[in-house]
Amino acid sequence: QTVTVDLDRRRRCGFPEVVYGEGKTVEAIAAVFDEQHARGEPAMATRVSPEQAEALLPLLSGATYNQVARILRRESHPGRPRVGKVAVVSAGSSDLPIAEEARETLDWMGVAVTMVHDVGVAGPHRLPERLAEFEDADAVVVVAGMEGALPSVVGGYLACPVVGVPTSVGYGANFQGLSALLSMLNSCASNVTVVNIDAGFKGGYVAGLIATRAAAGTEGRRDA
Amino acid sequence: QTVTVDLDRRRRCGFPEVVYGEGKTVEAIAAVFDEQHARGEPAMATRVSPEQAEALLPLLSGATYNQVARILRRESHPGRPRVGKVAVVSAGSSDLPIAEEARETLDWMGVAVTMVHDVGVAGPHRLPERLAEFEDADAVVVVAGMEGALPSVVGGYLACPVVGVPTSVGYGANFQGLSALLSMLNSCASNVTVVNIDAGFKGGYVAGLIATRAAAGTEGRRDA
Amino acid sequence: QTVTVDLDRRRRCGFPEVVYGEGKTVEAIAAVFDEQHARGEPAMATRVSPEQAEALLPLLSGATYNQVARILRRESHPGRPRVGKVAVVSAGSSDLPIAEEARETLDWMGVAVTMVHDVGVAGPHRLPERLAEFEDADAVVVVAGMEGALPSVVGGYLACPVVGVPTSVGYGANFQGLSALLSMLNSCASNVTVVNIDAGFKGGYVAGLIATRAAAGTEGRRDA
Amino acid sequence: QTVTVDLDRRRRCGFPEVVYGEGKTVEAIAAVFDEQHARGEPAMATRVSPEQAEALLPLLSGATYNQVARILRRESHPGRPRVGKVAVVSAGSSDLPIAEEARETLDWMGVAVTMVHDVGVAGPHRLPERLAEFEDADAVVVVAGMEGALPSVVGGYLACPVVGVPTSVGYGANFQGLSALLSMLNSCASNVTVVNIDAGFKGGYVAGLIATRAAAGTEGRRDA
Amino acid sequence: QTVTVDLDRRRRCGFPEVVYGEGKTVEAIAAVFDEQHARGEPAMATRVSPEQAEALLPLLSGATYNQVARILRRESHPGRPRVGKVAVVSAGSSDLPIAEEARETLDWMGVAVTMVHDVGVAGPHRLPERLAEFEDADAVVVVAGMEGALPSVVGGYLACPVVGVPTSVGYGANFQGLSALLSMLNSCASNVTVVNIDAGFKGGYVAGLIATRAAAGTEGRRDA
Amino acid sequence: QTVTVDLDRRRRCGFPEVVYGEGKTVEAIAAVFDEQHARGEPAMATRVSPEQAEALLPLLSGATYNQVARILRRESHPGRPRVGKVAVVSAGSSDLPIAEEARETLDWMGVAVTMVHDVGVAGPHRLPERLAEFEDADAVVVVAGMEGALPSVVGGYLACPVVGVPTSVGYGANFQGLSALLSMLNSCASNVTVVNIDAGFKGGYVAGLIATRAAAGTEGRRDA
Amino acid sequence: QTVTVDLDRRRRCGFPEVVYGEGKTVEAIAAVFDEQHARGEPAMATRVSPEQAEALLPLLSGATYNQVARILRRESHPGRPRVGKVAVVSAGSSDLPIAEEARETLDWMGVAVTMVHDVGVAGPHRLPERLAEFEDADAVVVVAGMEGALPSVVGGYLACPVVGVPTSVGYGANFQGLSALLSMLNSCASNVTVVNIDAGFKGGYVAGLIATRAAAGTEGRRDA
Amino acid sequence: QTVTVDLDRRRRCGFPEVVYGEGKTVEAIAAVFDEQHARGEPAMATRVSPEQAEALLPLLSGATYNQVARILRRESHPGRPRVGKVAVVSAGSSDLPIAEEARETLDWMGVAVTMVHDVGVAGPHRLPERLAEFEDADAVVVVAGMEGALPSVVGGYLACPVVGVPTSVGYGANFQGLSALLSMLNSCASNVTVVNIDAGFKGGYVAGLIATRAAAGTEGRRDA
Ligand SMILES: Nc1ncnc2c1ncn2[C@@H]1O[C@H](COP(=O)(O)O)[C@@H](O)[C@H]1O
Ligand SMILES: Nc1ncnc2c1ncn2[C@@H]1O[C@H](COP(=O)(O)O)[C@@H](O)[C@H]1O
Ligand SMILES: Nc1ncnc2c1ncn2[C@@H]1O[C@H](COP(=O)(O)O)[C@@H](O)[C@H]1O
Ligand SMILES: Nc1ncnc2c1ncn2[C@@H]1O[C@H](COP(=O)(O)O)[C@@H](O)[C@H]1O
Ligand SMILES: [Mg+2]
Ligand SMILES: [Mg+2]
Ligand SMILES: [Mg+2]
Ligand SMILES: [Mg+2]
Ligand SMILES: [Mg+2]
Ligand SMILES: [Mg+2]
Ligand SMILES: [Mg+2]
Ligand SMILES: [Mg+2]
Repeated sequence: QTVTVDLDRRRRCGFPEVVYGEGKTVEAIAAVFDEQHARGEPAMATRVSPEQAEALLPLLSGATYNQVARILRRESHPGRPRVGKVAVVSAGSSDLPIAEEARETLDWMGVAVTMVHDVGVAGPHRLPERLAEFEDADAVVVVAGMEGALPSVVGGYLACPVVGVPTSVGYGANFQGLSALLSMLNSCASNVTVVNIDAGFKGGYVAGLIATRAAAGTEGRRDA
Repeated sequence: QTVTVDLDRRRRCGFPEVVYGEGKTVEAIAAVFDEQHARGEPAMATRVSPEQAEALLPLLSGATYNQVARILRRESHPGRPRVGKVAVVSAGSSDLPIAEEARETLDWMGVAVTMVHDVGVAGPHRLPERLAEFEDADAVVVVAGMEGALPSVVGGYLACPVVGVPTSVGYGANFQGLSALLSMLNSCASNVTVVNIDAGFKGGYVAGLIATRAAAGTEGRRDA
Repeated sequence: QTVTVDLDRRRRCGFPEVVYGEGKTVEAIAAVFDEQHARGEPAMATRVSPEQAEALLPLLSGATYNQVARILRRESHPGRPRVGKVAVVSAGSSDLPIAEEARETLDWMGVAVTMVHDVGVAGPHRLPERLAEFEDADAVVVVAGMEGALPSVVGGYLACPVVGVPTSVGYGANFQGLSALLSMLNSCASNVTVVNIDAGFKGGYVAGLIATRAAAGTEGRRDA
Repeated sequence: QTVTVDLDRRRRCGFPEVVYGEGKTVEAIAAVFDEQHARGEPAMATRVSPEQAEALLPLLSGATYNQVARILRRESHPGRPRVGKVAVVSAGSSDLPIAEEARETLDWMGVAVTMVHDVGVAGPHRLPERLAEFEDADAVVVVAGMEGALPSVVGGYLACPVVGVPTSVGYGANFQGLSALLSMLNSCASNVTVVNIDAGFKGGYVAGLIATRAAAGTEGRRDA
Repeated sequence: QTVTVDLDRRRRCGFPEVVYGEGKTVEAIAAVFDEQHARGEPAMATRVSPEQAEALLPLLSGATYNQVARILRRESHPGRPRVGKVAVVSAGSSDLPIAEEARETLDWMGVAVTMVHDVGVAGPHRLPERLAEFEDADAVVVVAGMEGALPSVVGGYLACPVVGVPTSVGYGANFQGLSALLSMLNSCASNVTVVNIDAGFKGGYVAGLIATRAAAGTEGRRDA
Repeated sequence: QTVTVDLDRRRRCGFPEVVYGEGKTVEAIAAVFDEQHARGEPAMATRVSPEQAEALLPLLSGATYNQVARILRRESHPGRPRVGKVAVVSAGSSDLPIAEEARETLDWMGVAVTMVHDVGVAGPHRLPERLAEFEDADAVVVVAGMEGALPSVVGGYLACPVVGVPTSVGYGANFQGLSALLSMLNSCASNVTVVNIDAGFKGGYVAGLIATRAAAGTEGRRDA
Repeated sequence: QTVTVDLDRRRRCGFPEVVYGEGKTVEAIAAVFDEQHARGEPAMATRVSPEQAEALLPLLSGATYNQVARILRRESHPGRPRVGKVAVVSAGSSDLPIAEEARETLDWMGVAVTMVHDVGVAGPHRLPERLAEFEDADAVVVVAGMEGALPSVVGGYLACPVVGVPTSVGYGANFQGLSALLSMLNSCASNVTVVNIDAGFKGGYVAGLIATRAAAGTEGRRDA
Repeated sequence: QTVTVDLDRRRRCGFPEVVYGEGKTVEAIAAVFDEQHARGEPAMATRVSPEQAEALLPLLSGATYNQVARILRRESHPGRPRVGKVAVVSAGSSDLPIAEEARETLDWMGVAVTMVHDVGVAGPHRLPERLAEFEDADAVVVVAGMEGALPSVVGGYLACPVVGVPTSVGYGANFQGLSALLSMLNSCASNVTVVNIDAGFKGGYVAGLIATRAAAGTEGRRDA
């Protein structure tokens, strides 16, 4: 028995444990999905390769796979209404897979998402043209590779928290995403926080938490 | 005229521009405070040395200086009630200055703060003993140096967003905070985001944004 | 003759030379096994690929291969009783191969091993629930990737030496295990030492040395 | 004789050798100024500390020192008309010394300069408001620390070459300017080139070369 | 719709948006080419693999592919006369692909190019022998891997701007081009600027901008 | 109250919490010493500067300060017999402060220590000449800067665990101890583990744990 | 014509230009061999893959390929007597390919070589046992991966120059040879110099230069 | 007794042990000088600060101190004739202290030295003009900071071994000499080896060994 599923995670953290698929056997992933299914938990696994997905899908009824996002998941309450509002904004079209990973995660959390693609700083007029689509968002996930400058600019236009997701898109002195990561950590916009390189899942998850709490309002909750 | 104050910042971003004090002349800082004062904005400057503060305090009536936090600021609405709830949790007692920088920022934003000091993982029983003090927080700022493991553990116990602030406390392979920074970026807890090393201001600011929005509730706001 | 086996190693160091299999020819590995066999030494090779193993097994009677651990070895005294007690504790299920490499090494040394899997800090209640299984261990090997926080927490609960083995599990700012390595080197728990990234063999070996010496007691030995 | 002045530099490169002042003795710097003066060359030294300047000024008649820029120099043709047009644009007011170093260099080269201060991306409306002042420049030097995003945005608005000068302004994961340097090297704007961290001299020098050549026109020159 | 072509780029920046081909789908690249073609823009894509090119060429009439340079493009005005003069100088014969990428870019911009191959510093007599071929260039692109010393030497011989393009040619402590990159950033020749590792496109582009402006002359343009 | 002493540490970990003195106020350190004294715990603080010590000694009766080791401590059972045997072996005479920090820690733990100084690999005959002094040790702490090769050689001669302590002694490509740290992590001797750069305290502490357990023998303990 | 062979290299440097084979086309390599052959130069190419060699051997009569060393070369004076004496000493059997690259280079230079394999520091008695074989060498090339400690020890035993060649053998915190490289650069033995990681060619070449000059004696030469 | 002088060093290595002065006490350095003096050895200490020297000179009769080189030493055979020939070539005048450290070392070894200052690549005509002064050298030490390109160029002109000494002269992306170090390690000139950053002593020492051996001739020696 080499897996210890954290079955108490939803009670403590609001959502069930999400499986990190990379390097796991098909058996290990299926075991977690089964155990969570038995308890009525909607399972999700990230960084699942097409090969892993192909082997898993026949074993897991009701599971779907998004190949761009590399996410395998089960829906718990299909059709339930989305709460809150998160925008996922990406800099270049090569950042799409990571933006999709964030979108899938938010959808799994039941949060409404607005996608804004390919508005990086080399064409600086593109972002302001589309600000109206998401200036009332509860949080914005900004996905950018290369110099990773977009979160600072988005942060400079908006009042809500911005979660920067650096991607490994680029070459040379990009050093697999280090360049974008450092940019975002050093952002001169005060509302920018950062997650790991290529961590679309985490960017979506944190934005989702912010949105669900904003949607509910906590003052009431705390008094209850 | 070498300074261009961003006087529109509050409208766009909810709070006025905050001055980064390091390397600025006394004149430059005073100019911003004066310009913001003239517009009724509560100015704040971070990373202000005791020498800078000593020269600035006589020039800026109503300003106060917190030497541990290295923050100089003016209060806009003294005595107004605090909204929301943010906990600032620190791992070791050497992390105090950065925790204080976060606390001052939150106070300036008008957010209620709970401080929990010196509950790092080397004494793992200390954190659970104090969880009750902040498990209903809107967001938690976790300040830790050395191996920076505390945000993951806090994140594992709670459902709200955790903003990790790595500090440069440590020596050797700590590399001035790189160790704690990488730890937090690689956190296996899904609710952990990260700001720059020693960035108590940013940690506090983002948590404050989350708390003020949670306190207000956005569903209502969006419909309005 | 391009290999110079250190045939005196057991006398000096207590155990025979172990072959580092990576990049070696089948002939070179077989030569060492044969030379050690001729002297009654139980040979062991680490980081042996399935391809190398397939070519070597027919040549080396009595050798066995553990594909997860990538270890090829010969047992010297099958069935002899195990001495001491070492726990191998791992953070996530992707860390399994390195944990297995440590376990195989300890078994080859004749040390008793307890395995505790998948008790990483994102589910912080899991470790305390299982402490009773190994709190009397002579040493604990803690295998963790991503932020590598687990050794500090284990170290905070126990009095015995903890050997941290950072793994390369993770992505992005993990930098192939650098993140976990730095965490462990900067551990605020005083009883944590560290070996190389993915060095399950070394983690197991050092813990095995501690356990065999603890099992024997040295005060007596020294007087003898 | 430990200095070998490159007295042929103007013929080959258009401008005389510039002394790198850091770590040089007062004697060594004075020797170069004297030798160049004897040949009618306008000497210039960069990164000259106030202490060095204080010792040198009495020795070098006609020399002036700009303490913010740390440049000591002699004017060859006071009052001659400036050629071309270069803008020096800076992100924050802490970047002023490096912007000044570029400005002094350009002035020494006889190039007209426009200064635009403190228009970093956290206040993204500031730059477009001032574009008209320099959209006809031959080249723009953009000086920025922290995340170093400004050259990309300037580059996205303009057709002329942009020379990015990363500064060491910032802290933590800024790593003394590495963050801004990597940003600029990875700029998604095609017209951005980069010089060393804090290299205001070089940024100004290259922009000056571009402007003087543009001012002259080379088609004519080449046929001549 | 995951692509947002910057159709205003030529007006702002003088040349249309260039596609970064790496990691893009065939559909995404074809979409941009089609949209630009519809507007009479000559499209160009860099870092296009032979596999991508093979799929794209049948879809894009009039497009050509240079496999060494990995550039796919359409010519807008075949046969128009070249303006200006740029030399592309390379250090070793392994640097050829990056030199070709610069050459293709310059050709697409309509700039005249002179190629000088394999004149690295290990044979220091080779460069001076060939200087006459390009000493009247408007700008020189110098492409070099390993220790990246060639731009400094070229810069020492010439008065025009030198754009250094470090390549990833080398091994060991070359660290995929870091060595050449740092060399060029630290060049003691004042006229050397730098672009990203292997960024033949950018090196060519910036040199092309310098040459076209020099060819036109700006004094006239500005008065106009 | 900004300090939370871990008063349960001795029960869990065998020894009381040790204060990390760097960056702490005199008040904070004195508070811990007082609280531990009140419970009969022998307090110890590491990395205490002479200035801190001078202020603390008058406040803490019975405390002593070792300026070379930078350790301030109180003895609990003066004169009690030492148990076990640990050797502290250092490579060069500049490594003395870190070797002393290890020695003081071991003495505070009640472990017998043998010091062997200045036997680095540049004089390879020196170590074998002195092996007899410590070949029966329970553990060896090896302190080395520069290339940090000594732990491998010691490890090659002995059967007991070797705890490598890399020091920051050296210059240039030493990178403040990184060179020695990497050497020790990559040691080809199987019995070498590593602690942080300059972590004499940790090296001594872990060796002390090994020695006390070896001295007691655990087989008996476990059955009890 | 993309290759500019340095045909004057033998006159200046004593030996003809050696081709760096990595990333070169078969045509480019053959062109150099042909050009050198036409002038009676014995060509050599390093880092030639088996695939390149297979294509080249039929084209180049008299050329031979050593697959372990990855060297392709032509002998100029088969059977001529060797001069001088260089030892190539390697630490582990995985370092063999780089040791062979050094040996081939020395053989091509006409220098006598002694090979000593697998005498790394984990078995510290092995080196002294074999010192007699090479203590009269003119220079020693020491090839070592992992912690790269062997050159320091060899340097400590001998009076001649030691050329350290770090290899990329190892894993984890070895960082592809960085660990061994830093060790050798920080060697406390005064007679150790270093070449690039895996640069067996360079290590052999420099040692060969030392040996040929020592064999000849220069005092005589200089007076001549 | 914390110092173990290696009194056998001259027999093994040809020259006595040299003291690394940094961080040593005056007593420790004086002890080594005294012990070596008693045996007729000419002591030398490197990296000795003016403060250390001031305290030591009165204690050590016959010792002299070169403040630029930071070397303290005793002459054994004043006035003996110099053997061999080594050139010390430096790139910029800020590299003087390291060049002096090499010169002092060579003088102490009894080797004849030629100094060539300030002939860096930004003025590429300077080196060829002075080649005649040292083209018959047995070895050349090349001292260079910033981009560290000079050893490659010197190596391209000469047949003898070139020992590159990178210096920490520079700023920004120089990273305290890393830039020059990597350049030299990646030199495309085959005769370049490298020592540590700022290691003038080592550069001089290795060149001195080469020169003394070349001066003597080894063929004869070996037969004897
Ligand atoms: N893509 C991801 N990036 C970062 N963390 C993740 C990702 N997917 C899952 N996780 C977290 O990683 C933890 C450890 O995963 P596991 O190895 O599956 O036990 C889980 O508890 C999740 O919180
Ligand atoms: N601030 C600077 N940054 C970079 N290079 C410089 C600077 N100032 C002068 N230089 C160049 O550095 C070269 C070497 O300087 P020196 O050490 O004075 O011989 C000169 O030839 C200049 O081209
Ligand atoms: N020199 C040291 N190096 C590493 N860890 C230490 C050192 N001194 C004390 N510690 C540990 O650091 C932890 C945190 O220290 P403190 O900041 O004092 O709460 C303590 O619990 C000790 O286990
Ligand atoms: N394996 C090698 N490592 C380092 N340098 C080499 C190697 N092989 C050849 N070289 C050198 O690299 C230079 C440039 O090579 P090329 O790219 O062939 O013009 C040659 O002049 C050789 O001196
Ligand atoms: Mg685009
Ligand atoms: Mg504490
Ligand atoms: Mg798990
Ligand atoms: Mg500002
Ligand atoms: Mg060539
Ligand atoms: Mg010594
Ligand atoms: Mg071996
Ligand atoms: Mg000069």
